[in-house]
Amino acid sequence: MSAKSSSDKHKAILLICDGLGDRPSIDDGKTPLQAAYTPNLDELSASGINGLMDVISPGIVPGSDTAHLSLFGYNPYRYYPGRGVFEALGADMELHKGDVAFRANFATVDDEMQVIDRRAGRKGSKELAEILNGLEIDGVKILLKNTTEHRCAVVMKGEQLSRYVSDVDTHEAGGFVQECKPLKNGEAERKTATIVNKFVRMSYELLNDHPINAERRQKGELPANIILLRGAGSYVDVTSMKERFGFSAACVAGASLYKGVAKYLGMHVLTVEGATGKADTNLHNKVEVALNALEEHDFVFLHVKDTDNNGHDGNFEGKKKTIERIDEELVARLKDTDAYIVVTGDHSTPVSIKRHSSDPVPVVIKGDGVRTDEVNKFDEFSVASGGLNRIRGIDLMPILSDFMGYYKMYGT
Amino acid sequence: MSAKSSSDKHKAILLICDGLGDRPSIDDGKTPLQAAYTPNLDELSASGINGLMDVISPGIVPGSDTAHLSLFGYNPYRYYPGRGVFEALGADMELHKGDVAFRANFATVDDEMQVIDRRAGRKGSKELAEILNGLEIDGVKILLKNTTEHRCAVVMKGEQLSRYVSDVDTHEAGGFVQECKPLKNGEAERKTATIVNKFVRMSYELLNDHPINAERRQKGELPANIILLRGAGSYVDVTSMKERFGFSAACVAGASLYKGVAKYLGMHVLTVEGATGKADTNLHNKVEVALNALEEHDFVFLHVKDTDNNGHDGNFEGKKKTIERIDEELVARLKDTDAYIVVTGDHSTPVSIKRHSSDPVPVVIKGDGVRTDEVNKFDEFSVASGGLNRIRGIDLMPILSDFMGYYKMYGT
Repeated sequence: MSAKSSSDKHKAILLICDGLGDRPSIDDGKTPLQAAYTPNLDELSASGINGLMDVISPGIVPGSDTAHLSLFGYNPYRYYPGRGVFEALGADMELHKGDVAFRANFATVDDEMQVIDRRAGRKGSKELAEILNGLEIDGVKILLKNTTEHRCAVVMKGEQLSRYVSDVDTHEAGGFVQECKPLKNGEAERKTATIVNKFVRMSYELLNDHPINAERRQKGELPANIILLRGAGSYVDVTSMKERFGFSAACVAGASLYKGVAKYLGMHVLTVEGATGKADTNLHNKVEVALNALEEHDFVFLHVKDTDNNGHDGNFEGKKKTIERIDEELVARLKDTDAYIVVTGDHSTPVSIKRHSSDPVPVVIKGDGVRTDEVNKFDEFSVASGGLNRIRGIDLMPILSDFMGYYKMYGT
Repeated sequence: MSAKSSSDKHKAILLICDGLGDRPSIDDGKTPLQAAYTPNLDELSASGINGLMDVISPGIVPGSDTAHLSLFGYNPYRYYPGRGVFEALGADMELHKGDVAFRANFATVDDEMQVIDRRAGRKGSKELAEILNGLEIDGVKILLKNTTEHRCAVVMKGEQLSRYVSDVDTHEAGGFVQECKPLKNGEAERKTATIVNKFVRMSYELLNDHPINAERRQKGELPANIILLRGAGSYVDVTSMKERFGFSAACVAGASLYKGVAKYLGMHVLTVEGATGKADTNLHNKVEVALNALEEHDFVFLHVKDTDNNGHDGNFEGKKKTIERIDEELVARLKDTDAYIVVTGDHSTPVSIKRHSSDPVPVVIKGDGVRTDEVNKFDEFSVASGGLNRIRGIDLMPILSDFMGYYKMYGT
């Protein structure tokens, strides 16, 4: 019989493999997760409780941002501030209540504002970014940071700004730079849209004839001669995970979106050498940082992006290999710790359709006291008969926090 | 084949084994329900439809009061009036809209108001209770009733009272009597807190030197020299089960909380000789009263408390034995009636952690027309693959009332 007192607290690691879920391939009916050799994930399934999870709700196709909010116990319909906020936080920019933030790209346009390449040859420039950083338009201060390649984050600080404005980015080459429009009939929306349009025009004027771009043209490279904004978000203060659940949380991730979500919820974002959010990411370093983080923190969120990238690329073999790397390099190291281990995805990204889908993701929880089931293979099909049955993303963190001993009884 | 018309009405018994659910033991991985010999429960499972149930929602740890509201189809987030209301109703005290009720204990304190024993040696006194019953403070009438042992219920009747005041009870020995504080910044909260503090002080003044306590001290017993209040609740009228579902409901329970919930929802609370809510309860009498009640009522709620007590005590063998008694003395008698039989718990109270947990509880429904599944063992693991899948407590009563023929079609 167990001698544990009711005050016992436990630690946990939540491994989220982005876009993990998939649909059966036409060839042999197997998903990448089924086709992959995953002895360690299967061991987790055999010793844990398994199920399917609708990260938002059945049939709703989650974005990565809303999905992660849900998985951390925050209803995205209430707490989603817009993507730009996560990009800016992930880029280590400081945000305060009322600030409006955007995702942004260096892009290449011609004189007619037609988009030649919305990624400017996937090449940004810290120097050009610095020219645009700190501009002031109509009393609003605009901060810009070049993060990776062509990607930037933009923050506007000033009175009466709104996230309800449309994207300037065309989302594909060949189109023309869009005018930013207010999405609600309000003063703040009109003001914000005006400033965005002025800023985009100004970026072209400051960048187009800049010597750096002359040099790029000379070398046959595409000039980074405009900034295109999209995904406006409005920063608000939210109750941190620590306040909400009572435990200290840390984040180990490569891609900036996930660091941004983690910061938004008050997690400690840890630095990992070689964590890139891409195929070349250093999984070894990530798992070591995650395991070390358990000494100071109660909960560690460990994120791997490349499963999703392969799904978007329609690369079955690539997704399968990434899963095998995760099994061998991450899960093998994690599976014997005393902490609760949860493995799941934030959504499905089936290689057959190269986009996010609402197909539920597999989830396994291993640790002290879970009701082990008959599942001994971790994949979309096997877990369907598991003891968790079919849960929702929003339920995961309450379930886990009760196992961890951080719970509040409702009633008496 | 049944020749019943769609207007046919059926009866039902809902057996709730308090704190029934559990986690696998470290020894052999079995829960008390798995380890127990339960041929009758297993027969119900084999001939019924089974599943897991989150009594509130996944990850939420239910109190017994909120759990029962949910199981009877009342969303606790809307209908929970605070524990004190159920205690007072369970003690047969009359409540009207606006009354504020408390759980209360006779306790033993020293001159400094330090708590020596918050249960006064588990011994109350009807005579001392009568001294405090009917006092009036600041125009508010205070009624007090000694229920079992040291336990009391207190009702305040007057204008402008609020349930949003803090507990006076320390919840453990050694601490000092707490000052009752308003939990909201309002006139009613301040007034109620003031009256509670005056009443607690007055109870000490009236009880400390009372001859009964002098006698207790002389005999080496702890004096019952103060009343400690906690769990304030505010009575409101709710739609009865009869109005809501259309059928007449009765309650067979030993412990006063459950009788209180039943009264709150308009059930008829039946008297059972020897029903104590403890290990010595007379299950034979309870089941006979329940079966007889089916003649006058359509729905009978039959409650057994001792499974929960054993969970809180960490007593695996005790919980297992209580389950075996339930199987032999209750379920054996129930299983062959024509009524629908539902067996479940109000929450899990795993012996390993000695507290309520959010682990879902097993549920079985046996009766005419249910979709029988392959489950033939009633336990937390077996039912996970049952035909009910994973439902919520709030859904149980609508499901059952449709089987019973009491339903309202939504739409046409």
